[in-house]
Amino acid sequence: MGSYTLSGIVDRLGGSVIGDASTLIRQVATLERAAPDTISFLANERYLAHLKGTRAGAVILGEAFSAAVDLPRIVVGNPYAYFARVSALLNPQPAFVAGRHPSAVIDSEARVAATACIGPFVVIEAGAQIGEHVLIGAGCHVGRGAVIGERSRLYAHVTVYHGCVIGPDGVIHAGVVIGADGFGIAMEQGEGGARWLKVPQIGAVRIGRDVEIGANTTIDRGAIEDTVIGDGVKLDNQIQIAHNVEIGAHTAIAACVGIAGSSRVGAYCRIGGASGIAGHLSITDHVEISAHTLVTKSITEPGTYTGAYPFEPNREWRRNAAGLRRLGDLNDRVRALEKSLPEAPAINTKGK
Amino acid sequence: MGSYTLSGIVDRLGGSVIGDASTLIRQVATLERAAPDTISFLANERYLAHLKGTRAGAVILGEAFSAAVDLPRIVVGNPYAYFARVSALLNPQPAFVAGRHPSAVIDSEARVAATACIGPFVVIEAGAQIGEHVLIGAGCHVGRGAVIGERSRLYAHVTVYHGCVIGPDGVIHAGVVIGADGFGIAMEQGEGGARWLKVPQIGAVRIGRDVEIGANTTIDRGAIEDTVIGDGVKLDNQIQIAHNVEIGAHTAIAACVGIAGSSRVGAYCRIGGASGIAGHLSITDHVEISAHTLVTKSITEPGTYTGAYPFEPNREWRRNAAGLRRLGDLNDRVRALEKSLPEAPAINTKGK
Amino acid sequence: MGSYTLSGIVDRLGGSVIGDASTLIRQVATLERAAPDTISFLANERYLAHLKGTRAGAVILGEAFSAAVDLPRIVVGNPYAYFARVSALLNPQPAFVAGRHPSAVIDSEARVAATACIGPFVVIEAGAQIGEHVLIGAGCHVGRGAVIGERSRLYAHVTVYHGCVIGPDGVIHAGVVIGADGFGIAMEQGEGGARWLKVPQIGAVRIGRDVEIGANTTIDRGAIEDTVIGDGVKLDNQIQIAHNVEIGAHTAIAACVGIAGSSRVGAYCRIGGASGIAGHLSITDHVEISAHTLVTKSITEPGTYTGAYPFEPNREWRRNAAGLRRLGDLNDRVRALEKSLPEAPAINTKGK
Repeated sequence: MGSYTLSGIVDRLGGSVIGDASTLIRQVATLERAAPDTISFLANERYLAHLKGTRAGAVILGEAFSAAVDLPRIVVGNPYAYFARVSALLNPQPAFVAGRHPSAVIDSEARVAATACIGPFVVIEAGAQIGEHVLIGAGCHVGRGAVIGERSRLYAHVTVYHGCVIGPDGVIHAGVVIGADGFGIAMEQGEGGARWLKVPQIGAVRIGRDVEIGANTTIDRGAIEDTVIGDGVKLDNQIQIAHNVEIGAHTAIAACVGIAGSSRVGAYCRIGGASGIAGHLSITDHVEISAHTLVTKSITEPGTYTGAYPFEPNREWRRNAAGLRRLGDLNDRVRALEKSLPEAPAINTKGK
Repeated sequence: MGSYTLSGIVDRLGGSVIGDASTLIRQVATLERAAPDTISFLANERYLAHLKGTRAGAVILGEAFSAAVDLPRIVVGNPYAYFARVSALLNPQPAFVAGRHPSAVIDSEARVAATACIGPFVVIEAGAQIGEHVLIGAGCHVGRGAVIGERSRLYAHVTVYHGCVIGPDGVIHAGVVIGADGFGIAMEQGEGGARWLKVPQIGAVRIGRDVEIGANTTIDRGAIEDTVIGDGVKLDNQIQIAHNVEIGAHTAIAACVGIAGSSRVGAYCRIGGASGIAGHLSITDHVEISAHTLVTKSITEPGTYTGAYPFEPNREWRRNAAGLRRLGDLNDRVRALEKSLPEAPAINTKGK
Repeated sequence: MGSYTLSGIVDRLGGSVIGDASTLIRQVATLERAAPDTISFLANERYLAHLKGTRAGAVILGEAFSAAVDLPRIVVGNPYAYFARVSALLNPQPAFVAGRHPSAVIDSEARVAATACIGPFVVIEAGAQIGEHVLIGAGCHVGRGAVIGERSRLYAHVTVYHGCVIGPDGVIHAGVVIGADGFGIAMEQGEGGARWLKVPQIGAVRIGRDVEIGANTTIDRGAIEDTVIGDGVKLDNQIQIAHNVEIGAHTAIAACVGIAGSSRVGAYCRIGGASGIAGHLSITDHVEISAHTLVTKSITEPGTYTGAYPFEPNREWRRNAAGLRRLGDLNDRVRALEKSLPEAPAINTKGK
């Protein structure tokens, strides 16, 4: 692990130092648990109290708070992004040695760059292409004709089905499955009664550059055309992306989200945890979906959309949820009351 | 990849041709992106506009739309199922060569059919049985005494715990876990305070014939008796099926659904994405559950059931959700108004 | 499989026998499907009817029901926990033979106890420590410097990233991923427009003793400090625990739950299936969260909290959900009615 002075950091990453620029930094830390050889950051006014008491050797903060503390500090426009860069400086990816583990099973018709590192128990099938400086973790499976772009890293037990493409600079975490069959079934009357017939899934998955995919996330191959993940998309763990979905560039999706078949999500969207998007919808750019929300119609205006049930102590929930089941009736009762009164009260009924 | 004339297709699959029966078809396509050597289909009136402009060489459609286009066409009763069969004709499963990869670890007391194909890094334990023409993908693990029925295909990294049975003609996608322990725990007072005691899970999982299971889905073994998945059931990705659940034949379950312990789902049900079924319930046949719905009571009547919160722009959601928390009170206020009026208005209060 | 007389059982586990203490028991069973050589249990009054008709050779029940049946029986304070112990007696974990499968790839700088059993295709990296009597299932991956405590069992395809620690007596099911990167991203303006910058995740995961983790569950490593799972915690399948979460001792979490970053859950909590906890919250001890509930605020009082939409037949849901979208208006309309009346009716508006 390296160490840098504050001046060494700003030489590399920009920003300006206030205070002792020779302060030596060995690691990053939270404000609360910092040690004197660490640097912390303030990106949110809410944590200003933590700033006062921190034992950090230095902090990163924005102009607005540059006088809020006496510590040596780096003042920058975007403290959180700067912090990310400092952390990357202090915690570089471990280097790996190019080569193929002797246990790996690599088809003679696969093309593997000499600078790639292929771990133990990896299987690479015919026609697959592994780019320069790629890391394929232990036990990964790369199917026929699949392509892994340069500098991408696959952790352990990643499955890439035949014909799928991962762009350059990807990070794919353990247990991810890319290109399994989409859920395409057609009901058919047969001799023994109705049964589901499988619709062959002949599309693939195409993933752009600089995409990160969290552990155990699944992205299905297209039914006819491809499922497409744009450049710079960030996917958390245990997300399910169905066949023929398209995710626009730089969209970030939190864990446990499910997106149903053929829906298109725009660029720069943020999708909250465990929310869902029904099939065949279109979500425009810069849309934010709150956690636990089910989107059932296309969204054409940027903004934040929500549909989570507000939680309560169970006893109150019981009373209110019972009312919810009579809400249509309640509406009728209020209308009847309004009609029965001599003069209708003037009320705001927008959105009715 | 093969190619067929329209007459070649109807010879094999039935249906009748209108127009040039010698039209040569090499692949299937969507109406929107079809090329002249492809065949597309119309299964939903909504896409009639796409039909008009398609560049497909031929289309599959129902009687009602047989005159809606001049293209060569195949007229059939069930266009979508027919399309599935045409696609299977044009895109046959890749053949595999029977045999065992030299790296596979197969116990001498396992029975593996000579026509099965066992991939690299597979482990098959004592007493397991692998049927005729089975494909076991790279890195799969088949536990003691587990049975894989003939012609079933397991993709990479599937785990089948000891004693579980998969019927014939199954398709099991990567990362599926069959037969992990159910979540059986009993709280017990001990010396250091209360703690959870594990309840041994001694049942297994029995899966019928012609079942498809999507990537990273998990099906737990029974606590005492077995967890049972009926014939022809189709499970999408990332579904969780708890111990002692029973799923009736030909039920289809979309991604991210969770079914809690000991519940029984009938035959020919359709369960929408990310919905849930609480434990110890019984759902009759032909029930449809909408996406994001939590079923908390048994369902005895076929039909569609829903319980998703309607999503809205966040500002409107805030206002309405606040009202939801006062709904019990609102009901009381309306009742008080009704009582305070000289004569009760006549209203429809069914379902109250 | 062993067999025990009732007196043999109470000699080992306590409790008192009523009836023939020489009754021989070979297995446990449910009341409904018991055979004469099995023992069943009654832990819930609801199943009293099943008790009457059972064919079990003996039953385990509490004082209150000790006279409810004529069968030989064991009377104890906690029938379900006792049943768990009897089942463990009759169904001991299969023994395993210490040693390393020749295919395992174990770094020369890893420390593996001589009593551990390392399965085929396992990878153990430099600096990792595998404790006494540990079982590492086929295809597991234990990263650099990770620690697996004594007697823990990892089933197939478990991934433990570098530096993570699993305490003693753990049970980790297939497909679990421990220590993948948390979802830490910072938006940054670059030359080609805004993009997400990865925040290095330099914390790890620390898991206490006696923790069970269900199939395909994921627990992310901390961003700076560690993600922490307390002693005796029980996690079901497909749970997602984000970076820097802390779960208190003996908390039980049902399947498909997601807990967002930096939230703290207390001890002895019970979290229902598919519920969620938003980020940066604190949940006190002894809190129960109902299934499908999203917790959006910290909880300081023990109790049960709920936020699931009540499901209904779709037609009724449509009517009531439409009303929900006008609920803010409805509230205004009722207020207007109240004002328009000569005298305000007396109503209960607690909680408003």
